[in-house]
Amino acid sequence: MHKIFTTLFAALLSSQLLSQPYQPTWESLESRPIPQWYTDAKFGIFIHWGLYSVPAWATNSNADGFGSNYAEWYWERLNNKKLKIHKEFVEFHNKNYGPNFKYQDFVTQFKAELFDPEFWAQLIKNAGAKYVVLTSKHHDGFALWPSREAWNWNAYDVGPRRDLAGELTTAVKKAGLHMGFYYSLYEWYNPLYRQDVHKYVREHMLPQLKDLVTRYEPDVVWADGEWEHSDTVWQSREFLSWLYNESPVKNTVVTNDRWSSERKNGGFNTTEYGKGNASLTRAWEECRGIGESFGYNRNENLEQYQSSKSLIHMLIDIVARGGSLLLNIGPAADGTIPVIMQQRLKDMGDWLSINGEAIYGTTAWPSAPTLEDIYFTKKGRDLYVLVTKWKKQIILPQVKADKVELLGYEGNVRFSRKGNSLIITAPQLNPNNNPSPYAWAYKLSNVF
Amino acid sequence: MHKIFTTLFAALLSSQLLSQPYQPTWESLESRPIPQWYTDAKFGIFIHWGLYSVPAWATNSNADGFGSNYAEWYWERLNNKKLKIHKEFVEFHNKNYGPNFKYQDFVTQFKAELFDPEFWAQLIKNAGAKYVVLTSKHHDGFALWPSREAWNWNAYDVGPRRDLAGELTTAVKKAGLHMGFYYSLYEWYNPLYRQDVHKYVREHMLPQLKDLVTRYEPDVVWADGEWEHSDTVWQSREFLSWLYNESPVKNTVVTNDRWSSERKNGGFNTTEYGKGNASLTRAWEECRGIGESFGYNRNENLEQYQSSKSLIHMLIDIVARGGSLLLNIGPAADGTIPVIMQQRLKDMGDWLSINGEAIYGTTAWPSAPTLEDIYFTKKGRDLYVLVTKWKKQIILPQVKADKVELLGYEGNVRFSRKGNSLIITAPQLNPNNNPSPYAWAYKLSNVF
Amino acid sequence: MHKIFTTLFAALLSSQLLSQPYQPTWESLESRPIPQWYTDAKFGIFIHWGLYSVPAWATNSNADGFGSNYAEWYWERLNNKKLKIHKEFVEFHNKNYGPNFKYQDFVTQFKAELFDPEFWAQLIKNAGAKYVVLTSKHHDGFALWPSREAWNWNAYDVGPRRDLAGELTTAVKKAGLHMGFYYSLYEWYNPLYRQDVHKYVREHMLPQLKDLVTRYEPDVVWADGEWEHSDTVWQSREFLSWLYNESPVKNTVVTNDRWSSERKNGGFNTTEYGKGNASLTRAWEECRGIGESFGYNRNENLEQYQSSKSLIHMLIDIVARGGSLLLNIGPAADGTIPVIMQQRLKDMGDWLSINGEAIYGTTAWPSAPTLEDIYFTKKGRDLYVLVTKWKKQIILPQVKADKVELLGYEGNVRFSRKGNSLIITAPQLNPNNNPSPYAWAYKLSNVF
Amino acid sequence: MHKIFTTLFAALLSSQLLSQPYQPTWESLESRPIPQWYTDAKFGIFIHWGLYSVPAWATNSNADGFGSNYAEWYWERLNNKKLKIHKEFVEFHNKNYGPNFKYQDFVTQFKAELFDPEFWAQLIKNAGAKYVVLTSKHHDGFALWPSREAWNWNAYDVGPRRDLAGELTTAVKKAGLHMGFYYSLYEWYNPLYRQDVHKYVREHMLPQLKDLVTRYEPDVVWADGEWEHSDTVWQSREFLSWLYNESPVKNTVVTNDRWSSERKNGGFNTTEYGKGNASLTRAWEECRGIGESFGYNRNENLEQYQSSKSLIHMLIDIVARGGSLLLNIGPAADGTIPVIMQQRLKDMGDWLSINGEAIYGTTAWPSAPTLEDIYFTKKGRDLYVLVTKWKKQIILPQVKADKVELLGYEGNVRFSRKGNSLIITAPQLNPNNNPSPYAWAYKLSNVF
Repeated sequence: MHKIFTTLFAALLSSQLLSQPYQPTWESLESRPIPQWYTDAKFGIFIHWGLYSVPAWATNSNADGFGSNYAEWYWERLNNKKLKIHKEFVEFHNKNYGPNFKYQDFVTQFKAELFDPEFWAQLIKNAGAKYVVLTSKHHDGFALWPSREAWNWNAYDVGPRRDLAGELTTAVKKAGLHMGFYYSLYEWYNPLYRQDVHKYVREHMLPQLKDLVTRYEPDVVWADGEWEHSDTVWQSREFLSWLYNESPVKNTVVTNDRWSSERKNGGFNTTEYGKGNASLTRAWEECRGIGESFGYNRNENLEQYQSSKSLIHMLIDIVARGGSLLLNIGPAADGTIPVIMQQRLKDMGDWLSINGEAIYGTTAWPSAPTLEDIYFTKKGRDLYVLVTKWKKQIILPQVKADKVELLGYEGNVRFSRKGNSLIITAPQLNPNNNPSPYAWAYKLSNVF
Repeated sequence: MHKIFTTLFAALLSSQLLSQPYQPTWESLESRPIPQWYTDAKFGIFIHWGLYSVPAWATNSNADGFGSNYAEWYWERLNNKKLKIHKEFVEFHNKNYGPNFKYQDFVTQFKAELFDPEFWAQLIKNAGAKYVVLTSKHHDGFALWPSREAWNWNAYDVGPRRDLAGELTTAVKKAGLHMGFYYSLYEWYNPLYRQDVHKYVREHMLPQLKDLVTRYEPDVVWADGEWEHSDTVWQSREFLSWLYNESPVKNTVVTNDRWSSERKNGGFNTTEYGKGNASLTRAWEECRGIGESFGYNRNENLEQYQSSKSLIHMLIDIVARGGSLLLNIGPAADGTIPVIMQQRLKDMGDWLSINGEAIYGTTAWPSAPTLEDIYFTKKGRDLYVLVTKWKKQIILPQVKADKVELLGYEGNVRFSRKGNSLIITAPQLNPNNNPSPYAWAYKLSNVF
Repeated sequence: MHKIFTTLFAALLSSQLLSQPYQPTWESLESRPIPQWYTDAKFGIFIHWGLYSVPAWATNSNADGFGSNYAEWYWERLNNKKLKIHKEFVEFHNKNYGPNFKYQDFVTQFKAELFDPEFWAQLIKNAGAKYVVLTSKHHDGFALWPSREAWNWNAYDVGPRRDLAGELTTAVKKAGLHMGFYYSLYEWYNPLYRQDVHKYVREHMLPQLKDLVTRYEPDVVWADGEWEHSDTVWQSREFLSWLYNESPVKNTVVTNDRWSSERKNGGFNTTEYGKGNASLTRAWEECRGIGESFGYNRNENLEQYQSSKSLIHMLIDIVARGGSLLLNIGPAADGTIPVIMQQRLKDMGDWLSINGEAIYGTTAWPSAPTLEDIYFTKKGRDLYVLVTKWKKQIILPQVKADKVELLGYEGNVRFSRKGNSLIITAPQLNPNNNPSPYAWAYKLSNVF
Repeated sequence: MHKIFTTLFAALLSSQLLSQPYQPTWESLESRPIPQWYTDAKFGIFIHWGLYSVPAWATNSNADGFGSNYAEWYWERLNNKKLKIHKEFVEFHNKNYGPNFKYQDFVTQFKAELFDPEFWAQLIKNAGAKYVVLTSKHHDGFALWPSREAWNWNAYDVGPRRDLAGELTTAVKKAGLHMGFYYSLYEWYNPLYRQDVHKYVREHMLPQLKDLVTRYEPDVVWADGEWEHSDTVWQSREFLSWLYNESPVKNTVVTNDRWSSERKNGGFNTTEYGKGNASLTRAWEECRGIGESFGYNRNENLEQYQSSKSLIHMLIDIVARGGSLLLNIGPAADGTIPVIMQQRLKDMGDWLSINGEAIYGTTAWPSAPTLEDIYFTKKGRDLYVLVTKWKKQIILPQVKADKVELLGYEGNVRFSRKGNSLIITAPQLNPNNNPSPYAWAYKLSNVF
């Protein structure tokens, strides 16, 4: 009797798999190529927005290491007595809201009254970014869309009373950008999760994730909060095979690698605030904030914010190593984007409007020489030389080229060969004809 | 293959049923006798307390019939445009809270800061009531206990931050009373209920109900909100058979008859504000408020409140017809019980402390004559004659007795026989020796 | 030069005084007779309503003596570290509002949204009261009318945004009752008062008082908070002479005796919760709450409330000693009058509708004998005998009468003479013909 | 009699005036020289902070002309039905706060919880500013210090519960800067002002102003809201003579020219957002925001903010015409300074750290030629040539000099004479040795 069933099941399974090429195994899932749009994009905008945007506060000290100063962890910081910065959070909270005021009480102050999704989309497009990743649900479990699994714990039922995720999706797609969602697998204090993770995955998490994908058709599904359980518990492989085989975005979607405590992969590799994951063989992405926190932190002043110069240098460094930058903005609870972030995005957009050719659609140059303040990207037969500190002369060993241009500069650029090296002589720039502040890109034609 | 399974299943089922006498059929369920404690009790206190206790408002007009003036329906009144009183609710709400203020926003004002469960229990005990029925969850779905199925939509996670149901249960049981819970099967706006009632019953309602029963071991499970679906959808018969066969309260629990849109029974019959359900064969209970609303309604003034006299007369009338009175109180959001309700409860307690013998443990007298302002109950061989308007003489046809007493009065009561009738001559009362205001009870010994 | 001025001034002064009979001396002011309406009224309603009605809380302990349990002193209790009950207030406040929440912050919760002045006036009229005294401003300085001296610290600019005093005045006068105002001379925390009392009196207090009198024309001006300064500092004598000589209510107004730290008089004597001030020569009034606090105290339960019986007995006792009862009610911040207070008022009104003849317009009987539970009032040639505990026989020494009636009772009352005494034999009452619960009044005609 | 008095008074007056040189006439008051510290300072920071920082909103349209888009006028905009933008304000307000929410209700949300006065002072000092002008009281009458004339309508009694003005004064003085206060003479809705302006001036305004001056000893008193009344009504001349003769800051204080509806002067001339008042004979100051509003306006995005470049150009233009720039920042209600403003201040400070020599302590050059993008200042024998757009060559007619330097540039600058002209040949700058972005300053020695 048992044998008959097994055979039958196997037959059904294989017939299904004919039309559904990805099996729920990492080997199969990782065999799926990363869609081209993503590897070309290089620059996306991460958006951390949620209930934590109401207190919008974290210590400026990162005393516990990685992330003490993340404002989106506010709730956990209040509860986690093991942390060095715990006491500081509790003091802030008690002083300003009182000990009886709970995290959930912030809901009435999350109003998004000035949220203008089209303005957001335009700002991001003008920054030169190609995709967006919004926190559809962070570790607090609060959803930014009308999720029936989170009744009265989402932005449509309470607080703003709007489908924040849906409105932004519409505007972002209309602006010609790719929309994506961050989604936390675990939820700190959901009793269903705490008491019966299997029930949680079955009745809460998977229905939510599938609802998100089918409702908004995002091109990025960016998991997080995976570290407490294996892919078996999370049913990650089953979800990803559904995503790749059956979902409405099966052809365009990309995912990241945070689907299991063992960090088996699923999509591109991700890092935060580090340089470790540079890979020439697999897509990777580094996310980081303009300030130090992802969620908006009112406690950050100018000194905590990266300058436009350093952000542009960061983008150059990451792209030259084959990665993408997912740069985070933290809107305020009222739906405004702090103007300093608008300034940074504008400066990146201005720089990319001249130098984007050296960024988008490029790959790393595996045999690049190591030269101070000089970075390389390649595209087709051309090589781009990106300079983060102005040089009067650049000597590139083992390189020849037909032509050298300085992007944004109308005059000619002199170059010559000396032995195997190519020597570029920088043009004479003055404050009036300097094509861009912060960094410059030479295009060398027919190098490869 | 199929047959083997069927046989096996049938075997398992019947072995189980040996120890579990009640099958999930109405015939079987209704064969269970109502526990004695309940048929003796006669007088219980209903408590409507929840989020609606914050606005605590309803029209005083019952223009739409039954229940327009129920404050606990506030949320529905705001949304149900078909009602005549809809507009009045919306005007009140917009004027006082604004159109952007939603029902959920009342949560931060539900604090129960003065809630003293032992004071409540003592008040109820002193009123002469024998059981309590608390709204564990009303139609808004807001639970008064830490229900994991209603995360962040219960009084433990938000608002009061206390296990209101649990604290009251402990105090009520400690006072020697029976604890019970009202529970609404349906939830007006829960999207799970609205979109997939079967999933709702399976993942939300049944887990909640069983949690409630196993956690607090109530002696009354008082269902409501049953009218939109059949018992098959609600899985009522399955739940009741579990309750009667397996639950920790299987021997003591009573339920009411609101388990299915067809109003098949399960326990005692229930009515609100009516006289229709008088039954001599099946237990029944009438519930009603001291005011006109169940949930606290600040819009009610003295004229909307029943006098102590009329409440005592109501109790007498109901008990004489074989029923029980479930008298409602509506605490305020701060946990106080409006003092006028305390006054009414005290007056009932005072009256019952003298006349309770004629109420508790009695049954109706099937062959009672119809006499104005005169009611009858019986217990053992004795007959009680309850008089709601003072009479100088009472003539009871077809009655004889060995002795007649006036409860609470120390002197003798004269009586005589004339033909088949018993004639009672009322004693000469003055303001000093009148045993009780409002109503009087004669005890006639050895009548049966 | 100086002499000319003095002469001129004296001339002006005396010409003015011809038409203005009351000089700013106590001798002169006290020579003014108390208006007849007041001495006839006997029963008024005090109303304590203000910002303190929002927390509406006091200890139930009166550990510091007189007034620890007054909810209207909430602000002071929070600040006065010398009190035994201070700590308890601070604990309550910090637990429920947080240490950063100040008394002023209650303003946004004082909404009076259900305040219906005509309902209040009717309730008071039906209670049998003849005048009203509303707290126009208590010690917190918060005014219930649009006082320009208290900009943004009055109920018209903030909180309710209504002229509470004005609306009630209109309704009370329309109902045929006398309107009056309580007014606190001092203000706990007004820096003008604390730093320069003379400037305070000149620029703040006197303009406010005169505004109140000319704007609303009250028949009672009930001062309080006088104890920190002399009449010279308060300019009380000057104010009272203006009130009696020039104000629009110069012919009808009455004042009390709280105008100076030395307690020189001005009008009727006042007491709180005591029996000390009984006087047969000067009008006096006792004020007290239905509960123990004047301002609404949510912490009071039924046991803190006087019963209707005890209130009626209190009224009888006071009137029999020649005084008046100013019975206080404490409305809630929403403008509702707790229903228990409505019940008490109704019971008093019911009693007075039958027995009022023995109260209104009477005076004390100076030569009354002392008899347990028996009180006397007189009016014209008649004597009223008020009985607070039912007596079968009443023996009155040194009394003769032409006729004896029991108010509200239709039958005859037997009486006889024995020596110099009058013997009244009580009629045979039963629950149906008892004219009133709690207390009874015999009218004896032509006694004097 | 009258004559004797007049004589005596005149004698007293003149004796007083011997030690008090300034009489309450404009002629006398304007004879007082502007203190040197102020004419040297050139650059101050205006701070608009108050209750309006809570809604922090204005239209972006300036449809009614001057100031429709000023967030600090929020309250007036809500009430002034004559304005084109009135409706838009009302819509915003009603949507987000509800029609029953009044301006005063913002008080509980004004918390200043992150206000760090030392951080503010340091930020301003690093911006290169030399003085600060804080709105001690704007037209709403809400005071930022514990003013007893504005009890419960100031930041110490309600809202932040801190002496904001005092704390900032201490920090600013400690940082070595000059402290000053903006003060509005009129108050839109103060009933004392509306009903009796003379009483208002006497009992409210003058005591407040003198309290401010004696308590904090500010070096700038910056009046506003003067336009509804003459100097006689405001008693401006009397106040200023007190300020110049008797106050603790009589030797250092400067005032502006807004003391009367006739705009008679008192101190330096002031303009907002205009170029009209350039004067070579009298000190003048232009104030304007970094954004378009003075009070923080959340409705402003990057496009409403001036760039650092344009602010530096504005400073150069004003100083070259002999004026000072009072650049405004609008802190948020929580006490943070929006980071974009910090960025602008830092950029100005960076520029001034190199080029400040050409700004501070300079005067206009009355005989300056008109040349595009070229500005002049002078100090002692030196001339400064400020260039807002890079020029390869600069020809200055009628000028000779001993030496020419480019501030911040280490190399030599070539210059020659041609006829009466001086020809400066700009050095060859590249991105590495460009001393400052946005604008450059040449110093020409011994020109005069």
